[in-house]
Amino acid sequence: MEDTVATQTFSTEQLHTFTQRLFAHLGVPEEDARQAADVLSAADLRGIDSHGVARLRTYYDMLNLGRINPRPQPRIVRELPGTATIDGDNGLGLVVGPWANRVAMEKAEAVGSGWVSVCNTNHYGIAGYYVLEALKRDLIGFSMTNSTSLVAPLRGAARMLGTNPIATAFPGLEEPPIVIDMATSAVAYGKVEIARRKQASMPIGWAIDAEGNDTTDPHAMIDGGAQLPLGSDAERGGHKGYCLATMVDVLCCVLSGANWGPFAPPFALRQVEPERQVGKGIGHCFGALRIDGFIDPDEFKRQIDDWVRTFRRTKPAPGTDGPLIPGDPEREAEAVRRREGVPLLMPVVEDLRMMSKETGIPLD
Amino acid sequence: MEDTVATQTFSTEQLHTFTQRLFAHLGVPEEDARQAADVLSAADLRGIDSHGVARLRTYYDMLNLGRINPRPQPRIVRELPGTATIDGDNGLGLVVGPWANRVAMEKAEAVGSGWVSVCNTNHYGIAGYYVLEALKRDLIGFSMTNSTSLVAPLRGAARMLGTNPIATAFPGLEEPPIVIDMATSAVAYGKVEIARRKQASMPIGWAIDAEGNDTTDPHAMIDGGAQLPLGSDAERGGHKGYCLATMVDVLCCVLSGANWGPFAPPFALRQVEPERQVGKGIGHCFGALRIDGFIDPDEFKRQIDDWVRTFRRTKPAPGTDGPLIPGDPEREAEAVRRREGVPLLMPVVEDLRMMSKETGIPLD
Repeated sequence: MEDTVATQTFSTEQLHTFTQRLFAHLGVPEEDARQAADVLSAADLRGIDSHGVARLRTYYDMLNLGRINPRPQPRIVRELPGTATIDGDNGLGLVVGPWANRVAMEKAEAVGSGWVSVCNTNHYGIAGYYVLEALKRDLIGFSMTNSTSLVAPLRGAARMLGTNPIATAFPGLEEPPIVIDMATSAVAYGKVEIARRKQASMPIGWAIDAEGNDTTDPHAMIDGGAQLPLGSDAERGGHKGYCLATMVDVLCCVLSGANWGPFAPPFALRQVEPERQVGKGIGHCFGALRIDGFIDPDEFKRQIDDWVRTFRRTKPAPGTDGPLIPGDPEREAEAVRRREGVPLLMPVVEDLRMMSKETGIPLD
Repeated sequence: MEDTVATQTFSTEQLHTFTQRLFAHLGVPEEDARQAADVLSAADLRGIDSHGVARLRTYYDMLNLGRINPRPQPRIVRELPGTATIDGDNGLGLVVGPWANRVAMEKAEAVGSGWVSVCNTNHYGIAGYYVLEALKRDLIGFSMTNSTSLVAPLRGAARMLGTNPIATAFPGLEEPPIVIDMATSAVAYGKVEIARRKQASMPIGWAIDAEGNDTTDPHAMIDGGAQLPLGSDAERGGHKGYCLATMVDVLCCVLSGANWGPFAPPFALRQVEPERQVGKGIGHCFGALRIDGFIDPDEFKRQIDDWVRTFRRTKPAPGTDGPLIPGDPEREAEAVRRREGVPLLMPVVEDLRMMSKETGIPLD
């Protein structure tokens, strides 16, 4: 589905500098502002436009209104050598997430495996950022988060779960890593938004309307309907996407004491507040495994190379060039965008210009 | 899809006793035979018929032919406090799996989280068995395995991955646990088999034919076609099911040194051997997390109760009674079967009678 709306292109350095300075202007300590800009830039670089500077306006509003704490003191509230629960002190997920991910990685480095559940935090950017950090330390990382409820459980007619992504990554030696970063809904919410903007209909299996009926009309989903879980319907395994979203919800929220399911607090200001609180903020979960706790890392990477080459040689389905390796599309987007810059939709550019004007931080 | 073929009903005790005695007859030590029977019985009890005594004939043949080692000495070949790789010595997965799962649980009890990858093993029954064991110890368990390749990666026209299941479970206090046990393919292979037996067509999204085209004909899948991953097609997130199957494949096989992807050895005797070996046997992966490494276990369970009750109250989609909680269908099957026994298809009963006759072990 090609998008034909107008865009303006910025270099990744421009966007990173603007983002970092904006967060600092809003009271975020310098080092944290750089970290937050790193996470958002990773999304724009990798082509996951919905999670990059397109979200900066919301962070800006939330920080301006005091809804997010610019100077959080995240702390470990309970731990064992291989586990921890972290209270994110209502900080930016872009700061609390990397901090908690480092705790998981340090625990893995100490005892082989480390798992951390985080409450009292906010949206943490792309799940994939965290597992790419783990790769740098010869660790297999896992990253999950809950988010504002948009997805109906199979046989339900209400928004009860977030798009609750799961990410993990495996390093190759000569081949690039396998990088998995996927929402547990049938499609990302961004695809529904694109269909709405283009006045296009959606395939059956993406969403239901407010009554719980299948719909191809993006407005029917947006106006009180819900997205469907991966698998879409009972015949094609929609209960499995619901199971995966449930797993993410429990590991991120019930385990940490965050708000699970339909009670996840909204990210955007215009969304309604849930009817009750069952914990603090939203939740993340990070895991890390030391590869050398299982096998010689070079042997592991050689096998990943073999895996990747074997799967690239798969007989292609008609009309395709054959299977991609998980992470291919994002890596290809990154190569293009490092060279040519990041094309931003005009509404996103207008938001950036508004913030530039209000703060005096130059965008260009 | 109701199945109308003839069945004969046996009590779970009958089946457990027969299975245990049969394994012992084949040279499996008494305690291991009991363990193996426990795992198979769990499948029959929970209504996952394809993984219970329906598979006994294959284990019988494999043991008789010396393809599976009846007296394995599984050993830890590498470990850290929170990790281990286990070589299953080509034993029954029904014996090696529980042994390795205990290692993961003991490591979690020691340091909070324990992860174990297993090579040189065979089919281990239902993934859910292992996470139910973890529940008994106030642990959150994870269980995964690869299996004979049946599933095409998205945009592929060949069998490259197993149905690679993922299981996990979360305990409630007053409510029953949430139990997730799901193949990462759109549907279980058993559903294709049922369609074939009933001469019924399958929904689009389950399978492709040998050329890689969508098919509704179960024979076209069985005769050289492939199953599709969860999500089915590019529009509905088929790459995500492929990603999940990849994750399971790497954690179970690349991490342990087992045969990954299309090189998983066949379980049934009639299947062709893969073109090369890239490791030993098939692979499993077990994880365990101590709940009290994160949160007070009673508080966790109270929140799970609240989660379960909240999701049961979801507004139902039209024509349904509303969402199920993961694990509901299996628990309901177990309640019925404990009371009324396990209905076995006649071909399964005939296999049992043949083995009874050959060994002199009474079935009834």
